[in-house]
Amino acid sequence: MLEQAFVKKKVLITGGLGFIGSNLARRLVELGAEVLLVDSLIPAYGGNLFNVHGLEDRLKINIADVRDEYSMEYLVQDQDFLFNLAGQVSHIDSMRDPYTDLEINCRSQLSILEACRKQNPGIYILYAGTRQQYGRALYLPVDEQHPQYPTDINGVNKLAGEWYHIVYHRVHGLRTCSLRLTNTYGPRMLVKHNRQTALGWFIRLAMDDQEIQIWGGGQQLRDYNYVDDVVEAFLLAAANPEATGKIFNLGGRRPVSHLELIESLVSVAGQGSYRLVPWPPERQRIDIGDVYSSYRCIQETLGWEPRVGLREGLERTVAFYRQYREHYW
Amino acid sequence: MLEQAFVKKKVLITGGLGFIGSNLARRLVELGAEVLLVDSLIPAYGGNLFNVHGLEDRLKINIADVRDEYSMEYLVQDQDFLFNLAGQVSHIDSMRDPYTDLEINCRSQLSILEACRKQNPGIYILYAGTRQQYGRALYLPVDEQHPQYPTDINGVNKLAGEWYHIVYHRVHGLRTCSLRLTNTYGPRMLVKHNRQTALGWFIRLAMDDQEIQIWGGGQQLRDYNYVDDVVEAFLLAAANPEATGKIFNLGGRRPVSHLELIESLVSVAGQGSYRLVPWPPERQRIDIGDVYSSYRCIQETLGWEPRVGLREGLERTVAFYRQYREHYW
Repeated sequence: MLEQAFVKKKVLITGGLGFIGSNLARRLVELGAEVLLVDSLIPAYGGNLFNVHGLEDRLKINIADVRDEYSMEYLVQDQDFLFNLAGQVSHIDSMRDPYTDLEINCRSQLSILEACRKQNPGIYILYAGTRQQYGRALYLPVDEQHPQYPTDINGVNKLAGEWYHIVYHRVHGLRTCSLRLTNTYGPRMLVKHNRQTALGWFIRLAMDDQEIQIWGGGQQLRDYNYVDDVVEAFLLAAANPEATGKIFNLGGRRPVSHLELIESLVSVAGQGSYRLVPWPPERQRIDIGDVYSSYRCIQETLGWEPRVGLREGLERTVAFYRQYREHYW
Repeated sequence: MLEQAFVKKKVLITGGLGFIGSNLARRLVELGAEVLLVDSLIPAYGGNLFNVHGLEDRLKINIADVRDEYSMEYLVQDQDFLFNLAGQVSHIDSMRDPYTDLEINCRSQLSILEACRKQNPGIYILYAGTRQQYGRALYLPVDEQHPQYPTDINGVNKLAGEWYHIVYHRVHGLRTCSLRLTNTYGPRMLVKHNRQTALGWFIRLAMDDQEIQIWGGGQQLRDYNYVDDVVEAFLLAAANPEATGKIFNLGGRRPVSHLELIESLVSVAGQGSYRLVPWPPERQRIDIGDVYSSYRCIQETLGWEPRVGLREGLERTVAFYRQYREHYW
């Protein structure tokens, strides 16, 4: 189905130079789409022009911030699909500077939706939600009916951003869908600093032959999706009208302990080491224990399931950064 | 307990010239508190100087908007309690102008919490949530564990504003509590227009001897709290450390059909009439069917229950507006 769904379709990706956006862009170009990327290249965020290296002649790039209402009002016009991936994704930054998180994850989502409602009500909008919206797991695996009790400002604002999409579907008839992503990893993720994803930072530490500190025994469970699987999920949701108005969890093939994750990474990298240390109190306060998601709903509705196992995904990721290290370090 | 809890305590009420804020202020002055009201008197909102008529020498009024970060940073200093009631409360306005709703119900909540964290971390903050956060009822009565699936932008933003309070409690240790109000009515509610509460508008229509249109048969169930009961709930929550970090539903004594509500109102007023008409399509799209709340949790934890029955509450309300009509019409 995907082979035909995007041929000559006009596709806008916000956060298009970021980790997931750029991997999605690569796949969409292969599928024959006319891709327009919007990204603000905020230095501390994940946007990186090298992420679309080699594709420069096959897609368009528009540098703009999703907080810029007028630019967005223009850019959404005539598009068939909007993959709405721009976001402030650091939990830590959201607690230090809650206003910026609010501007990007709430206000901009409203203005993008308003732009679509006014300028292009037929567009199909795919939103990237997050398992952070759930907070601590009251039961496992976490399904879409699990209460949303976020534990940081980023989780609250992502929840609000998602529900704006649902409300605009129900009240204004916009076609929207949200995928709640779990921990996504792979080539082109940000590894410059430790404020976005822990795993990106650990990959950097291992490949710098540094020691990775594992907090509190490392038995806490998480699930991981290789980025190609996440891209596939967005494409399946965009191509299937069954997804309209719905919310789907993604999820990993199996829960993985933090210790196993780091052992695998160090083994795959052939570099780095790890050591168990006590929890830093300020991190323990916002830790949420074991969390992993059920992807049964998207599997049954859209036929998606994660295909790339953890070791294979880590191998591909390490190989990528070994080859292109200078552009990411 | 309430007789002693507020003597000489410094109390700040945002939205203090509004419906619930001013009723709360009256009670707190009686209880010996030093009350400071903050209100912006936005013309379309519920703030009304007459709401504190007769109390002018026994409390302080500071005209300011909660969106004004610097004023709030000053005003929260040295206060013992903050009743954080300022809000954009119109569902309809939130869909027409989602940005203003966001600024007041999200951004201002963040800046009030930041002001307290920096200037007065020992303050106790009581937030007014709403049953709108739940959206359509998946089961009845709606308890605090019910999923939050809001159906309009106001519901999304009130949800976010509440969760900022919970996150600031859990991460920063601020003492916060949220009461999720159901339909509140009584003296000093806004009756100028029909965009805030339906019941306020119906009271006006009845007392103007007009016809009230009941949409779609009038069998949908809601619950109602008389404002004195809501004030009592806020005071009980503020006076009892057991409430810290918690979320409590309020709720009515029993579910009441829309038809029964209007029949009671017309009977109490001795004026007005009603007629059944079909649903206007734009309102039916955002209607949420039967909704009423369980107040078991606050009853068990704080001993609160609604005391004023619907007919008695309507009688007091109608009598108030009959006496002071010129200040509200």
